Amino acid sequence: MKTITLAHGNGGYESKELVEKLFYSSFSNSILNNSEDAALIEDGKLAFTTDSFTVSPLSFAGGNIGKLAVCGTCNDLAMMGAKPKYLSVAFMIEEGFSIDELKNIIKSMHDELIKNDAMVVCGDTKVVPKGNVDKLFINTTGIGEIYYSGISASHLKEGMAILVSRDIGAHGAVIFAAREGMALSSELKTDCASLYPQVKALVDASIPIVAMRDATRGGLAAVLNEWAVSSGVAIEIDEASIPISDEVKGICELLGFEATALANEGTFVVAVPATETKKTLEILKQTNENAAIIGMVSSTYKGKVVLKSAWGTQRFLELPTGELLPRIC
Amino acid sequence: MKTITLAHGNGGYESKELVEKLFYSSFSNSILNNSEDAALIEDGKLAFTTDSFTVSPLSFAGGNIGKLAVCGTCNDLAMMGAKPKYLSVAFMIEEGFSIDELKNIIKSMHDELIKNDAMVVCGDTKVVPKGNVDKLFINTTGIGEIYYSGISASHLKEGMAILVSRDIGAHGAVIFAAREGMALSSELKTDCASLYPQVKALVDASIPIVAMRDATRGGLAAVLNEWAVSSGVAIEIDEASIPISDEVKGICELLGFEATALANEGTFVVAVPATETKKTLEILKQTNENAAIIGMVSSTYKGKVVLKSAWGTQRFLELPTGELLPRIC
Repeated sequence: MKTITLAHGNGGYESKELVEKLFYSSFSNSILNNSEDAALIEDGKLAFTTDSFTVSPLSFAGGNIGKLAVCGTCNDLAMMGAKPKYLSVAFMIEEGFSIDELKNIIKSMHDELIKNDAMVVCGDTKVVPKGNVDKLFINTTGIGEIYYSGISASHLKEGMAILVSRDIGAHGAVIFAAREGMALSSELKTDCASLYPQVKALVDASIPIVAMRDATRGGLAAVLNEWAVSSGVAIEIDEASIPISDEVKGICELLGFEATALANEGTFVVAVPATETKKTLEILKQTNENAAIIGMVSSTYKGKVVLKSAWGTQRFLELPTGELLPRIC
Repeated sequence: MKTITLAHGNGGYESKELVEKLFYSSFSNSILNNSEDAALIEDGKLAFTTDSFTVSPLSFAGGNIGKLAVCGTCNDLAMMGAKPKYLSVAFMIEEGFSIDELKNIIKSMHDELIKNDAMVVCGDTKVVPKGNVDKLFINTTGIGEIYYSGISASHLKEGMAILVSRDIGAHGAVIFAAREGMALSSELKTDCASLYPQVKALVDASIPIVAMRDATRGGLAAVLNEWAVSSGVAIEIDEASIPISDEVKGICELLGFEATALANEGTFVVAVPATETKKTLEILKQTNENAAIIGMVSSTYKGKVVLKSAWGTQRFLELPTGELLPRIC
């Protein structure tokens, strides 16, 4: 590899390769960890995570880059069992950007901070000349307080249940549709949402969460593959049980995508002991009735995700590769 | 104001206005503070700061965007009396960017992390299509551990001495020269450097530091004006005592700039009680012989910086306004 390609930003195979070969080898230390959403610092008391947002268009059905920037970082904390607490915000703004639009974006950030009971405590603003950046990029970096410890991609064991918190692929489909200028007659909106309240509900109900991850870039396929590799287990998914809305299915068929590789921004996957499956599903359904049990951990094909069709056939669900949609988040 | 202009990113008057009107009003809370370099969190035990880097060109005499990104964020922590500890790094990369160049940049980051005894614990990589960002932007966000507390822009009192750690304006002048394609026959290099070791030397020598700030965007003029306003004092500067190299003076004359408004990336201003002036200067000179006492706090023109010339005349040194050099850091 000689130059960076769009595939390096896909959240799938090429992203993983770039990050491991370039970044993890140079920055290696006892805390840096490629298989979790946030770093554990200060003896595991705090979680720390960063994300830059370059989504295009800046506004879309159900959200904008500001909402995304707060949800994205707070969700990475929430997925580690941390309560989002402090955020930094850095704006990279193109000269000529509308101040009214910026105000709307900031308003969305403010509204979403309230849902997380978090605050922006420091910031940075850079203005770059016209043409040097497309409109607006935002970086949010967050610190959360661990209130439920032990969540890990490497703790999955045979027999555990895999659930998803709602129907998948809405964010990816909405951005696709907006980008292609498709006038959707449907009500499809991004799933972009703050997940801390849902995670808190699970913890408050004493659900022994084993692994948890929001399925952002790379979608459900990336999360399940990372878990299978990190834990050295097989994950068997019942294809028919994956909740996918008709709108998302339609957009996938039209554009030739797999819903399992589409990005989500408010949808998470959770692994729990089999005995907790029913209770977990009940709690998830209180927020979204499309929450579902989609599979279980097995030992058949270690390090692999197996997709089982309604007709009894099986195939591997691979880590997404190649150029997925750039600027999805 | 209806649109964002380059002046909004100058680190001077317009930056301050934008940040106060848009960001501070929306994100207001007990920790967010516009007059310090980093936020104090966790009951003042930790400092937290963010910075995005968009410098152009990416490499310049004495440094590159990677070195800058680590120094910039670690220095903001060091200036608060914090030891840099954890960094997050977010790369926004243009499709087609050279992997070898990226490796060099990461190598510079690694080298600078060692000087700060800090580590990168989490990261993010976004790849955007060609033309959507100019080559590479980096965000670094840092957490430091406070080991010397009480440093504040609002603690300056009459009689205190103001010192600068070296000759000013080198970073701004180098970027200007590189941008204008000026073939410098001189040895002028950016001042970009990690300041934590120097701050530690002051603290280890029991210097009672009152205020401290690295003079980045907006230069020496911005720091002094912020201090004068925050503390409600006058700051009287002896113009002839400000250390400026001949090369920087030459570039300023050629391009019509004031060295006091030029950005620095490894030069700091420090305020100490008058009795500590000599000792402070001695310690600063151990790192750079151009360190100098440049003035003192008075009560003549409260909220103002007064520049006294060698001929006995006085004028106000104002907060920089208008379009300074964009993409300086």
